[in-house]
Amino acid sequence: MEAALAGKVTDEMRLVAEKEQRAAEDIRELVASGRVVIPANRNHVNLDAEGIGQSLRVKVNANIGTSPLACDPETELCKIGMALEAGADAMMDLSTAGDLSALRQQLLDHCPKPVGTVPIYEATIAVLERGQPIPETSADEMFDAIENHARQGVDFVTVHCGVTRAALHALREQGRTLGIVSRGGAFLKRWIEERGEENPLYAQFDRLLDLARAYDVTLSLGDGLRPGAVADGTDMPQIEELVTIGELVRRARQAGVQAMVEGPGHLRLDQVTANVALEKNVCDGAPFYVLGPVVTDVAAGYDHIAGAIGGAVAALAGADFLCYVTPGEHLGLPTPEDVREGVIAGRIAAHAADLARGNRAAAEWDREMSQARGALDWEKQTALAVSPSKARELLARHTPRPGPEGCSMCGKYCAYRIGQEVSSGRDSRSET
Amino acid sequence: MEAALAGKVTDEMRLVAEKEQRAAEDIRELVASGRVVIPANRNHVNLDAEGIGQSLRVKVNANIGTSPLACDPETELCKIGMALEAGADAMMDLSTAGDLSALRQQLLDHCPKPVGTVPIYEATIAVLERGQPIPETSADEMFDAIENHARQGVDFVTVHCGVTRAALHALREQGRTLGIVSRGGAFLKRWIEERGEENPLYAQFDRLLDLARAYDVTLSLGDGLRPGAVADGTDMPQIEELVTIGELVRRARQAGVQAMVEGPGHLRLDQVTANVALEKNVCDGAPFYVLGPVVTDVAAGYDHIAGAIGGAVAALAGADFLCYVTPGEHLGLPTPEDVREGVIAGRIAAHAADLARGNRAAAEWDREMSQARGALDWEKQTALAVSPSKARELLARHTPRPGPEGCSMCGKYCAYRIGQEVSSGRDSRSET
Repeated sequence: MEAALAGKVTDEMRLVAEKEQRAAEDIRELVASGRVVIPANRNHVNLDAEGIGQSLRVKVNANIGTSPLACDPETELCKIGMALEAGADAMMDLSTAGDLSALRQQLLDHCPKPVGTVPIYEATIAVLERGQPIPETSADEMFDAIENHARQGVDFVTVHCGVTRAALHALREQGRTLGIVSRGGAFLKRWIEERGEENPLYAQFDRLLDLARAYDVTLSLGDGLRPGAVADGTDMPQIEELVTIGELVRRARQAGVQAMVEGPGHLRLDQVTANVALEKNVCDGAPFYVLGPVVTDVAAGYDHIAGAIGGAVAALAGADFLCYVTPGEHLGLPTPEDVREGVIAGRIAAHAADLARGNRAAAEWDREMSQARGALDWEKQTALAVSPSKARELLARHTPRPGPEGCSMCGKYCAYRIGQEVSSGRDSRSET
Repeated sequence: MEAALAGKVTDEMRLVAEKEQRAAEDIRELVASGRVVIPANRNHVNLDAEGIGQSLRVKVNANIGTSPLACDPETELCKIGMALEAGADAMMDLSTAGDLSALRQQLLDHCPKPVGTVPIYEATIAVLERGQPIPETSADEMFDAIENHARQGVDFVTVHCGVTRAALHALREQGRTLGIVSRGGAFLKRWIEERGEENPLYAQFDRLLDLARAYDVTLSLGDGLRPGAVADGTDMPQIEELVTIGELVRRARQAGVQAMVEGPGHLRLDQVTANVALEKNVCDGAPFYVLGPVVTDVAAGYDHIAGAIGGAVAALAGADFLCYVTPGEHLGLPTPEDVREGVIAGRIAAHAADLARGNRAAAEWDREMSQARGALDWEKQTALAVSPSKARELLARHTPRPGPEGCSMCGKYCAYRIGQEVSSGRDSRSET
């Protein structure tokens, strides 16, 4: 961001400009204004940089990582491969079990896309592992964890700076159907309430900015008080936190640090657009990173669909970055297969919004697909599908011998074929 | 509708009122105004009637039926069971191969929900089967097919009355990425263009109204010119057809015949809301039955997700009835498993809109789920899921021993648990 402000076009900006079919100078201006971030840690070697924000293609993040009940580095490696193959634009390691540093390194080594983490997990878990309660975590330990992640090459870190005493007061005053559903938010709530002190990530925000600037780490201002039930959507604690985050976005920009904002969560469909407008206004156009949002609580087993609905509508309204949701989001840690399903659902949502936002490459992709469809060109149709492997698998199952006869949906009564025959009929008549 | 206009509350209206938690008189008024239809053929015995339209719960239709390349009555029976189990509110038989009358009877016998068909398939296929070209189908054969379906007990029939010479002229003038994708539309285009005559379903619309009134059949005014590519969305031929349909809705109401309107198809996400507003205005609030719409052409293999996005946004904007889309919609005839996935995706979309439209039963369902989630009550969470069987399957795979420990997503670091511990801590302190 400092380079952008100084009028300098970096390699990352050039790469992003090329991918987005935009002028490099446009990208520089967007980065300088803070409306686009390019998470790129100087220690993340071989990074294939991506831009996130206003007027760019909507990006999709995949969360991977271990938990105390499912901890196997090999499985995580498999998830990384699945997410990349499915087309994820970024990946976050949310591991909470095993050798956290090694798991993070594994992701950095294998993922050329921007990598994010939530350092407070590591800081708090270390305290819990040595048998102490959460509030024993010192502020230094929190900042040390952030610095360790930054030094290792992490491109963006989620920091729940907006979980302040004031926001927690709003939470207590109001009550909720489902209190806090963010792990980082829950850790900090406990820390703040039991110590009676302000959140160090807020109180010492300048220290965070110094760290971020030193390593070129993008801050992802996390929503520790995000609603975890549609009944809690757009409530006082959420908005109180967002207002604080808006203030921090401005401070980050003044310090030359890139910042984006994380958003809900669970939201009723009619509130999604309003939430994006709110964020874009309160946070002065900062890139908005929404977690889904799922538009109903009851889709357990199919949460990727509920998340795709919310994500598409959010992105149409201006959200820039969609965190995927896997089918079993509320039932357990995702398997590699779940990771693939989540990424694909997220990409469909992002692409639907890209199309609607007038992205030319997106429109061209759809046009080619429709032409292949009209030509009954099955090879091309499957190659152009959002997941060519899935399209080939389904085609083989449904229509073992695809050809000019049409697929098994209609066979010889294919509307495209009937339409074509009519056209020729009409054309030949018009010549006579 | 005649009963409603005469001020009479029928058994069907009472049943719908009970299901929707509304006064029977409200339902009568809505039916009388034409803004709600209750497809209920007097010959469909044991019908569990459903209301479709303004202010009611959004309904989901599942298409089943054979094709020349996949024709097995047993498989169709299996699809019927799957669709009902997954919670479909209506079912259409789109069979184009095998004993069409027997397949239809099988659906009527096994489906207590409203049943729909597209009689023009049968009329045209009979002509093709005897070796004649489509234009040899006589108008009488078209109306005979409709009457046969009506006599058999079909509750609603798709009739492509809006595929007029004027609409086809608009199609020729404009050109399209992907011409006609409706089979009924393609049959009629060929008939009209080769004979040079007007569509009998339009020219003899009064004859259709007489038939519909005689059997209490609801007309589903089909969109034979619906866009089959997002690039063609909201184009002249589509709107020309919609305007004609709006005129026919008024004529149907004057004749005491229930009518709803079918809509796209394929639409860019930013056009979905506008399409619903257009239909509601042009067709004076007639129930809107959208086919998806899918919001991108490239989701082949995952079209149910693209359809759920479009369906949710359409229903939020006022669409009343969602025709499901299966994952392999553009790759072949759905299998029973695909039918289930399609219905569930459609139900998530419909429910997300119900929640956003202020449906109280929908909000209560989500609230119960969130409470079960906060209580880590896994039995209740899976029972409340949109598909309990799928939720149980995923839970068993992810979290073999679910309990107060949380699921495998976080295990002992579960945010709900940490939140609860904090609350108790705070409460005990506040007492001192």
